[in-house]
Amino acid sequence: MAIDFGLLAVGGALVALVYAVILIFNVRSQNAGTPKMQEISGAVREGANAFLSREYKVIAPVAVIVAVAIYLFIDIPLGTGGSTAIGFVVGAALSAFAGYVGMAITVRTSSRTAEAAKSGLGAALTVSFRGGSVMGMAVVGFGLLGLSLFYIAYQGTIASNPVTIAGLGFGASLIAMFMRVSGGIYTKAADVGADLVGKVEANIPEDDPRNPAVIADNVGDNVGDCAGMGADVYESFVVTAIAAVILGGLVQLAKPAALLSIISANQLILYPLTLGVAGIVGSIVGGFYIRRSIKSKPMSALNVSLMIAAAITVVIDYFLGQSLFGGASISYWLFGSAVVGVVVVIVIERVADYFTSYLFPPVRHIAEASQTGAATNFLAGFSTGLQSTAPSAVVLVVAILVSYYLGYYGSGSNVLMGVYSTAIATMSMLSLTGVIMSIDSFGPITDNANGIAEMAGLEGNVRVVTDELDAIGNTTKATTKAFAVMSAALAAVSIFEAFQSEVNRQISLHNLFAKYGLSNLCGNLLSGSSPQCQLSFTLSDPHVIIGLFIGSLLPFYFSSFLIQAVGRAAIKMVNEVRRQFREIPGIMEGTGKPDYAKCVDISTAAAIKELAGPAVLAVSTPLVVGFVLGPLALGGVLIGSVIAGVYLAFTMTNSGAAWDNAKKYIETGAFGGKGTPTHAAAVMGDTVGDPFKDTAGPAINSLIKVLNTISIVFVSAVVIYALFV
Amino acid sequence: MAIDFGLLAVGGALVALVYAVILIFNVRSQNAGTPKMQEISGAVREGANAFLSREYKVIAPVAVIVAVAIYLFIDIPLGTGGSTAIGFVVGAALSAFAGYVGMAITVRTSSRTAEAAKSGLGAALTVSFRGGSVMGMAVVGFGLLGLSLFYIAYQGTIASNPVTIAGLGFGASLIAMFMRVSGGIYTKAADVGADLVGKVEANIPEDDPRNPAVIADNVGDNVGDCAGMGADVYESFVVTAIAAVILGGLVQLAKPAALLSIISANQLILYPLTLGVAGIVGSIVGGFYIRRSIKSKPMSALNVSLMIAAAITVVIDYFLGQSLFGGASISYWLFGSAVVGVVVVIVIERVADYFTSYLFPPVRHIAEASQTGAATNFLAGFSTGLQSTAPSAVVLVVAILVSYYLGYYGSGSNVLMGVYSTAIATMSMLSLTGVIMSIDSFGPITDNANGIAEMAGLEGNVRVVTDELDAIGNTTKATTKAFAVMSAALAAVSIFEAFQSEVNRQISLHNLFAKYGLSNLCGNLLSGSSPQCQLSFTLSDPHVIIGLFIGSLLPFYFSSFLIQAVGRAAIKMVNEVRRQFREIPGIMEGTGKPDYAKCVDISTAAAIKELAGPAVLAVSTPLVVGFVLGPLALGGVLIGSVIAGVYLAFTMTNSGAAWDNAKKYIETGAFGGKGTPTHAAAVMGDTVGDPFKDTAGPAINSLIKVLNTISIVFVSAVVIYALFV
Repeated sequence: MAIDFGLLAVGGALVALVYAVILIFNVRSQNAGTPKMQEISGAVREGANAFLSREYKVIAPVAVIVAVAIYLFIDIPLGTGGSTAIGFVVGAALSAFAGYVGMAITVRTSSRTAEAAKSGLGAALTVSFRGGSVMGMAVVGFGLLGLSLFYIAYQGTIASNPVTIAGLGFGASLIAMFMRVSGGIYTKAADVGADLVGKVEANIPEDDPRNPAVIADNVGDNVGDCAGMGADVYESFVVTAIAAVILGGLVQLAKPAALLSIISANQLILYPLTLGVAGIVGSIVGGFYIRRSIKSKPMSALNVSLMIAAAITVVIDYFLGQSLFGGASISYWLFGSAVVGVVVVIVIERVADYFTSYLFPPVRHIAEASQTGAATNFLAGFSTGLQSTAPSAVVLVVAILVSYYLGYYGSGSNVLMGVYSTAIATMSMLSLTGVIMSIDSFGPITDNANGIAEMAGLEGNVRVVTDELDAIGNTTKATTKAFAVMSAALAAVSIFEAFQSEVNRQISLHNLFAKYGLSNLCGNLLSGSSPQCQLSFTLSDPHVIIGLFIGSLLPFYFSSFLIQAVGRAAIKMVNEVRRQFREIPGIMEGTGKPDYAKCVDISTAAAIKELAGPAVLAVSTPLVVGFVLGPLALGGVLIGSVIAGVYLAFTMTNSGAAWDNAKKYIETGAFGGKGTPTHAAAVMGDTVGDPFKDTAGPAINSLIKVLNTISIVFVSAVVIYALFV
Repeated sequence: MAIDFGLLAVGGALVALVYAVILIFNVRSQNAGTPKMQEISGAVREGANAFLSREYKVIAPVAVIVAVAIYLFIDIPLGTGGSTAIGFVVGAALSAFAGYVGMAITVRTSSRTAEAAKSGLGAALTVSFRGGSVMGMAVVGFGLLGLSLFYIAYQGTIASNPVTIAGLGFGASLIAMFMRVSGGIYTKAADVGADLVGKVEANIPEDDPRNPAVIADNVGDNVGDCAGMGADVYESFVVTAIAAVILGGLVQLAKPAALLSIISANQLILYPLTLGVAGIVGSIVGGFYIRRSIKSKPMSALNVSLMIAAAITVVIDYFLGQSLFGGASISYWLFGSAVVGVVVVIVIERVADYFTSYLFPPVRHIAEASQTGAATNFLAGFSTGLQSTAPSAVVLVVAILVSYYLGYYGSGSNVLMGVYSTAIATMSMLSLTGVIMSIDSFGPITDNANGIAEMAGLEGNVRVVTDELDAIGNTTKATTKAFAVMSAALAAVSIFEAFQSEVNRQISLHNLFAKYGLSNLCGNLLSGSSPQCQLSFTLSDPHVIIGLFIGSLLPFYFSSFLIQAVGRAAIKMVNEVRRQFREIPGIMEGTGKPDYAKCVDISTAAAIKELAGPAVLAVSTPLVVGFVLGPLALGGVLIGSVIAGVYLAFTMTNSGAAWDNAKKYIETGAFGGKGTPTHAAAVMGDTVGDPFKDTAGPAINSLIKVLNTISIVFVSAVVIYALFV
């Protein structure tokens, strides 16, 4: 083996970051538009930066406290030399930074996209796609950089105690959850508030500069859909890699005879990082396909770009795997799982497209149902979301089954290798993050470009281009959410396995067999690894069942917080906008200037304030359950949350996107077009869908990952100190 | 032991049925109102009977085919002398009959309630409560009769092979699911259709005789809320009792040394039936509290009635338990679980009341949010539903934990007795079915009375009384649904345990250890009951995980079918009503007569046609999963469906009731009252809530039970013939 795969991973990360810098220069060299456009874009940027810095000021002390707690209660007792706490800090910082960098460029790309739209669809698509690619490359670059540097620094520690790397994942997921939740509340409070008074009451178009909430709405796209989504996908990438790393480490610790040749140099730990490198190269090359000469069917162009990226990634996966494993037979089986992961991405992209694009029956049916009013629109949209869970479930189940058995049979029936193989499939999915994020982020960028075009009074043909791209953006955003949720589900399965192994390792390590009601021969006559000395997370144990019921509750209850937060903030926004319409003279005639800053403040304050409830719920539940009801119940919570959460998330994200596009379909002239009661009903549906698709739905993904990572970080303490087990 | 408890149970059942007959005479002796009222009531009755007979004609052949299949593939191979098939037929027939009897009286009570409302609230409440009590008594009477006669006929078979009684439960749940689904689609297609054109477009009040869909709407209340709910609660009662009986039987088969004295005469099998007897007596006595002299606060009166019933039931439970178990110490522990069950009923009743009554903040908040339009109304209502899951979850988790440990410690740490004890708590809950159904069924009766009062042009003060009762009915209906869902969740936990025990018994019986990858010493050197010869439903097994993902999908996907079915049928109804408004001269002036029958036909046809999809999904999924992926995956499906389904059901039933009452609250004059845009927004929310609370939400309960009962009936075949295990 001539290649040092740890350094290769660092190299891959640097390639992504360098490419991001190149893209940044490329985007900034584009024409930023008229002074008016730049003024608007500047206001949006200012609001976004103000929010983010205020948010980070709230998050930072929390992160410090958590880091200290981890150091005191985990690192010191385990003697891991502070690696968990350091991992937490690094993960958290990179998460915050990835979100910031991505957003910093997306706020600058919007006005350039609007300007480019004057030259046609291809130009606008190219500029927005490149802006999105900065986000994508920042996410994978920082993700892989953190992972590979941590690996290089702590490879011995990870190999002897794999869960020490979990701190990195917990840091990423805690910050991501904060950013997802607050960004989601921010963006939808503004959006819903702006729509309710603007479109519904005052009958002025979306993004009309007379609407005082319009800047807040555009800021929201950036802090929610860009910074929030970036932090979210960053954590997905990191957490998935960590799940695979931990499982690889556990296999190595078990030293199965059939695999001795491939665990000599941490190959199983390095393989997930290798996949990340392949995905970066594939994503960069795939992105080249998007160029100015594209004239029509932007969705097809994006699909081709994805296909190219996928194909290249798979080829590189193959050769790197061969090299890493020295051609051992397991490399073919694991390559099979990597292919499964890539195929999953392509299939869920198709599924999301089918349920959320207005080229297909479901969205058209919602538009049709709008003819009989908001109620039938609402029912049609919600049931479309419910229905979309079925194909997603099939993909999920088949992916688990196939990837598991590839690893299981490939390793001579090693159960842990089956689960590792599922983690590899998940990591392979996530390796396409670069291209997926590029396809996603162009959505909010064009949405903003749309707003800037409207506010700056650009001509109609610009709006036609940005409107078309915006509709596609709704679909691609749904894809990314499906991608994030699917990866959360798959990663959760892997992390659960790591959790379970770790629980039993800790019981054995601390000789807690008696506490957990295991045979009193354990530790003396029987080894801790014999079946009767292992705690089994069986469905017939009441702790497991209770854990499952608590876990499956969380996505529902968590969503109620978020939707109510949006509702409360939106009503405040509505009242403020109404007040301004009433009190500012000449506002509707365009002679009086609305007080945009006031609306920005309302969203900012609400997003920070409403963060507390969901955050406390997500962080305290696993700790309380773990320390009070014990590891069996906590294991149940982990699986319960994902079992229920994945479908609730699909329902909300897909129905939200479908509602939005049903409205856009009507705006193309279907069923009477704009200004009809049918359109008004569709606007209502879109408004309801907003917090579904951009606040609650995607936050479930963050919730699941926080539960997973906090549990795996605190597993040793839970095993030792749990009260009623 | 002087008492024959089998005969006691038969006696209890007969008491319920005799009391039902007395109530029928009492109700029929009331004044049925003016000829106009009787004419309307007659039309509703006719429509309801026509639907039910058409539905039974569709169901009957299906039931016959299933019965034959059970006989051929279960009874013959197991040598159970046809008891499973006979149980299925008895369960199915009694389910259909209980629904029919209950509905036959509720359709006759409505006009009498409207007439009684002329004399005030107490009179109307008494008449409608008694009508509802007929339904309650029919449900528990037929339920207990079937169970106790089956016990007497097959007590030897049940004791040696407890799952033979499962056929009775499968029959009940299959028919209940058919009735729930088709009744739910019928009632909401009519209701939504009538509201959309009537209230929203034509601006005529609810139940206005000019609305062609008004009779169909009233028929729907009877076939959905009465017959459907009756069949549903009947199955809950039967399935819960059967879960307890099977677990009791399994404990008896295991012959634990500490319990030998109390399993000599099938005491554990008889105990759940004994609880049923106590509940019947308690329910009858509690019902006496509802009388004509009640002047105000009907909800308090209903609560007092429930409290009396609960107290008496608990006292009788105590003495019957003492007698049955001859004063053995376990009787105190199990009595503790019976108390837990009764307390659960009281608590969930409070929870449902809090979230769905307009006396409390959540519903008032929805009404307030209606001021900013339908979208904020939707979001407020939906998030209220999501929020209501948390207290329900706490009740569920505490009930499982406490009841489990009562049985576990009481039996000297017998795990199966822990689960049996949870089943006892559940049966104790269900023993209050008589009073709960009385409190529930008065709702649809007053809803219908409301309609009759409106259509017959009775004076305003009648509407005031029936409106107040109707609003309370919304809350009590939500209570019953919570009751049914909670019992489904608890029963599912018990049935899963029985399923798991039976899987392992069958593996051992047929010496299938090798097939299931268990130690090759099993059956020769090791007994089938030693841990390494038992299939463990552990969360680390990929089959179990896949099963959980498939199971949790089902409530979401199943709901999408139902909501879409309602949406489709409602749009048909809307178009028909619009056509009649357009084509029938003088219809809006009251001189032309609407074609009510046409609307009744649309609902009937839709309800029958749309039954196929959900029914096939519910019945085929467990069979396909079981025979293809094996018992581990099927076990996962059972738990997965309940883990996710329980909260989705709570969300839908509670949000639906909350929307309805938010609308009613506005109609009392809040936020401007009727005719305002706020009211129009609330009407929209109510319309969306209709299929949530009366179609999809409660049908999830039926879905969970069908999955459970079909799996336990087919468990032996699944274990033997499963392909990939």
